[in-house]
Amino acid sequence: MANYTLYYWPLPFRGQFIRAVLAHAGATWDEPGVDAITDAMSKDIADQPVPFMAPPLLTDHDAGVSLAQMPAVLSYLGTKLALIPQDPKLAALTHKIVADANDVLDEVTRFGGRSMWTREEWDAFTGDRLPRWAQIFEATGRAHGLNADSGHMLGTSEPGLADLVTATLWFTMTEKLQELSELVGANAPHVAALSQRIMSTDALAAMRDDTDARFGHAWCGGLIEASIREMLNEQ
Amino acid sequence: MANYTLYYWPLPFRGQFIRAVLAHAGATWDEPGVDAITDAMSKDIADQPVPFMAPPLLTDHDAGVSLAQMPAVLSYLGTKLALIPQDPKLAALTHKIVADANDVLDEVTRFGGRSMWTREEWDAFTGDRLPRWAQIFEATGRAHGLNADSGHMLGTSEPGLADLVTATLWFTMTEKLQELSELVGANAPHVAALSQRIMSTDALAAMRDDTDARFGHAWCGGLIEASIREMLNEQ
Repeated sequence: MANYTLYYWPLPFRGQFIRAVLAHAGATWDEPGVDAITDAMSKDIADQPVPFMAPPLLTDHDAGVSLAQMPAVLSYLGTKLALIPQDPKLAALTHKIVADANDVLDEVTRFGGRSMWTREEWDAFTGDRLPRWAQIFEATGRAHGLNADSGHMLGTSEPGLADLVTATLWFTMTEKLQELSELVGANAPHVAALSQRIMSTDALAAMRDDTDARFGHAWCGGLIEASIREMLNEQ
Repeated sequence: MANYTLYYWPLPFRGQFIRAVLAHAGATWDEPGVDAITDAMSKDIADQPVPFMAPPLLTDHDAGVSLAQMPAVLSYLGTKLALIPQDPKLAALTHKIVADANDVLDEVTRFGGRSMWTREEWDAFTGDRLPRWAQIFEATGRAHGLNADSGHMLGTSEPGLADLVTATLWFTMTEKLQELSELVGANAPHVAALSQRIMSTDALAAMRDDTDARFGHAWCGGLIEASIREMLNEQ
């Protein structure tokens, strides 16, 4: 039996952060199909494994814990797997990086596809806020031990949650939406190099082989992914 | 000199969660004006106190720490002020509650007012997802020591971060948007009682007196607050 069960859509997006942490830690997990997810979501709240609105939902079988909300799941795994620095300032910065990553996902997808991109809005976003987000990660890395092609995001000798989250965000986005690589490379060159390095370890390369086989070139899915690709193809 | 400086708009909304934790802990803080906030936001990323996109931003003067992102600030303060349970499962649930609260704010305001409410969409939201969010908090409380009119959200003898966040969310929303009280009371009666009790302690009542004097009846501000009030007044 697997160590964990991850309820998430057949997509990288938010679920990929949890997969990356589990794979990095050498943990095993299974992923029920879409029917099981929609079934858990639509249950009476009192009958859910933990009261929750939407995936990701992770069950830790050994600990008997079920948890929703990507930042909460990452905080739980980060603590359990010793991936969060002991120093309170660096621990807090790790949580900030998780929240920033979550915001970047929200902004690129217009908050889960609540509206589609127009050319004017996409140009404004990729000309201002998206580069600024990349710069925020780069400046955070620069202030905390990330330099040249070595070192990790928060200066520890081993990749921590900050590294894994940063790498999952920028690597996955630019691998699945390759037209964004230049923007990310220009505004966050060290973060781009870190992301490439982290996601190329044996454990994470194997995880990506698995998710690529299952999800193909999909990133966030849905109509909003089609809208993003329309913007990218027209550029 | 104050212990902390909080950069946040002259509104309750996300900033109120941080104010509630600081006030509960007996800490002092100052709040620079809007010009100082927009100035910090628009600086080159490298010149910011911490690389960040938007407030809230908190500086802890004693520790020499500046942090953005409401969940990260709450995690930092919660750890520093011993408001997060030691048990990993309850600590993780605390982070989930913070993320849930953040999502509720996003949904009620349509993600910072990215579109205005229509009657049809508001009715759908207040007929389904908003009650469901309230039920999620109620079920979480019921599973963790919140019963009758006593006890705290996660069953500790003193209010923790989970209590303060839950109370700030539901009390502030229903005090500023009183038409929502019935919905919250019907779907989360124990949470509504907990919220009332927590926000009525001397420290939090004084904090509310201060913010009420400064911000009046505003909740999230902007065009989206006008849109919410239009929906509520028409009901």
